[in-house]
Amino acid sequence: MAFEIEKALAELNQEIEHLPFKAEPQRLYDPIRYILANSGKRVRPLLALIGYYLFDDTYAKAMQPAIGVEMFHNFTLLHDDIMDQAPLRRGIPTVHEKWDENTAILSGDVMLVKVYDRFLGVDPEILPVILQKFNRCAAEVCEGQQYDMNFETSDRVQEADYLEMIRLKTAVLLGFSLEMGALLGGASAGEATLLKEFGENIGVGFQLKDDLLDVYGDQRKFGKQVGGDIIANKKTYLLIKALELAEGEQSEKLNAWMEKKEFDGAEKVREVTGIYNDLNIKHLAETQSNSYFQKGFEALERLPVAVERKKVLFDFAQNLINREK
Amino acid sequence: MAFEIEKALAELNQEIEHLPFKAEPQRLYDPIRYILANSGKRVRPLLALIGYYLFDDTYAKAMQPAIGVEMFHNFTLLHDDIMDQAPLRRGIPTVHEKWDENTAILSGDVMLVKVYDRFLGVDPEILPVILQKFNRCAAEVCEGQQYDMNFETSDRVQEADYLEMIRLKTAVLLGFSLEMGALLGGASAGEATLLKEFGENIGVGFQLKDDLLDVYGDQRKFGKQVGGDIIANKKTYLLIKALELAEGEQSEKLNAWMEKKEFDGAEKVREVTGIYNDLNIKHLAETQSNSYFQKGFEALERLPVAVERKKVLFDFAQNLINREK
Repeated sequence: MAFEIEKALAELNQEIEHLPFKAEPQRLYDPIRYILANSGKRVRPLLALIGYYLFDDTYAKAMQPAIGVEMFHNFTLLHDDIMDQAPLRRGIPTVHEKWDENTAILSGDVMLVKVYDRFLGVDPEILPVILQKFNRCAAEVCEGQQYDMNFETSDRVQEADYLEMIRLKTAVLLGFSLEMGALLGGASAGEATLLKEFGENIGVGFQLKDDLLDVYGDQRKFGKQVGGDIIANKKTYLLIKALELAEGEQSEKLNAWMEKKEFDGAEKVREVTGIYNDLNIKHLAETQSNSYFQKGFEALERLPVAVERKKVLFDFAQNLINREK
Repeated sequence: MAFEIEKALAELNQEIEHLPFKAEPQRLYDPIRYILANSGKRVRPLLALIGYYLFDDTYAKAMQPAIGVEMFHNFTLLHDDIMDQAPLRRGIPTVHEKWDENTAILSGDVMLVKVYDRFLGVDPEILPVILQKFNRCAAEVCEGQQYDMNFETSDRVQEADYLEMIRLKTAVLLGFSLEMGALLGGASAGEATLLKEFGENIGVGFQLKDDLLDVYGDQRKFGKQVGGDIIANKKTYLLIKALELAEGEQSEKLNAWMEKKEFDGAEKVREVTGIYNDLNIKHLAETQSNSYFQKGFEALERLPVAVERKKVLFDFAQNLINREK
């Protein structure tokens, strides 16, 4: 049986639509239905299903845990959006905007509890190890968010700290999704770890590419305002490297742009991009990003599973990497 | 072996002090240490240990899950305090006051994840049922908090709705603590359910007594300002019953006091208490509270466990009931 992404995605969406949340209290459960219905690309649960498929044909046994991972991801978005005071998520009002902050806090809390319901059908023999790994991953995602918030008010962020932050905040959940799917499908601990490595490395590379696209992306394809990170002084890999490498006049100029309270957005983007160009930041970021992708694909190569089967995962990851928004 | 409350409490506090939270990021894990160190009475984990003791002498196997329940309780306080904008908790600044709201949200989130770590050592054979029951209870606690918030802006709250709200918000976790302890100790499903019934009923009775103490408590023994609920128009059992029973002039007077924006606190407390007295509210609340206590103790009586052993739980509950703050 071949793995069909579109079919799996349709099944996931179908299951998510029928999740058994109570009707009352409405204000508690409606936001959960709302955020889950406004579907993203369902990358994580698809990775979980593919992880399973690498070791066993059907993936029905991985469906509910996969949805748990997707619910957890959406739970983090719901609470992160409060912390970041984000008005929009995937083009529609965030939960704390549509309802209010208290509602967003409490709905998120119950959503996190409901994540754990999705694991209850896991074979009791491996349930403890799945939960232990999930808990660790979930805590790491929170740690990543905390580091990200710390960085906002930190003068100088080191490259290594930034890489660790994005690993925690976004990559570990991709790694866990694959690892969990594999373990549910009967993979050995070693095999599952290779997939986790694949997912984590692709995840970090992916985030670095995201940082790059903000500055060097094609405005027609890129979903957001090109240069948005520059305008907001967001501590991306590019800015962190530039702050590290800039010297003398260049350093002063960069810092001056960061301190300026009133400015023309287009001019700031042009000027800061100019500094990035002078410092060869694009190349550095691409090299870093590609080295993570390579490390990820090497782990996948080492996985002792038939190449035809691994191709599904390889193609799926390549599609993610090549996306331009 | 007899069950010694003081010894169990010391063991619990010892274990809680040594919970394995990371040092970093500090801002994520310090608030968890902070709220857990400012210990309450540890009622819930003690109930879990006693529940275990009813079926098996030692209670080491219940220790970690009992701490999980205590952590969950403190997690709810942490997030509820944000929602209620409470400045103090057990006499010291709340987490969102000492740090900030974002910190309180995120620390709470990771704390909830860490609750589930406490269950990982449970015998895999009963882990799924323990988790399923815990998840249900945890979601119900959130539902209770949501109903409580809904009531704040609701004109008329029905007695039955109020009783259901306090059952969800506070009683079910007491019931679950006992039920979980019993199941871990080898109780049958029926025995565990009797203990859950005991805990839930005592919990509701207890909350009703709390409502009573706010108005009729002895100021010297009561921890808070007597009449605080009246001043704040808090929808307690007393106010809900008074609004239901008051007619004509009395009803107008009560509503006028509730609508007044500027008033002398002592006068409002005296006047509203006067209305309560005229309506015999104290007696109604005491009767309601006692009927829950009685229902609880009846469930305990039906439990087929030696009377000497049940005495520990009976005495513990009586102590809670007779407390005046």
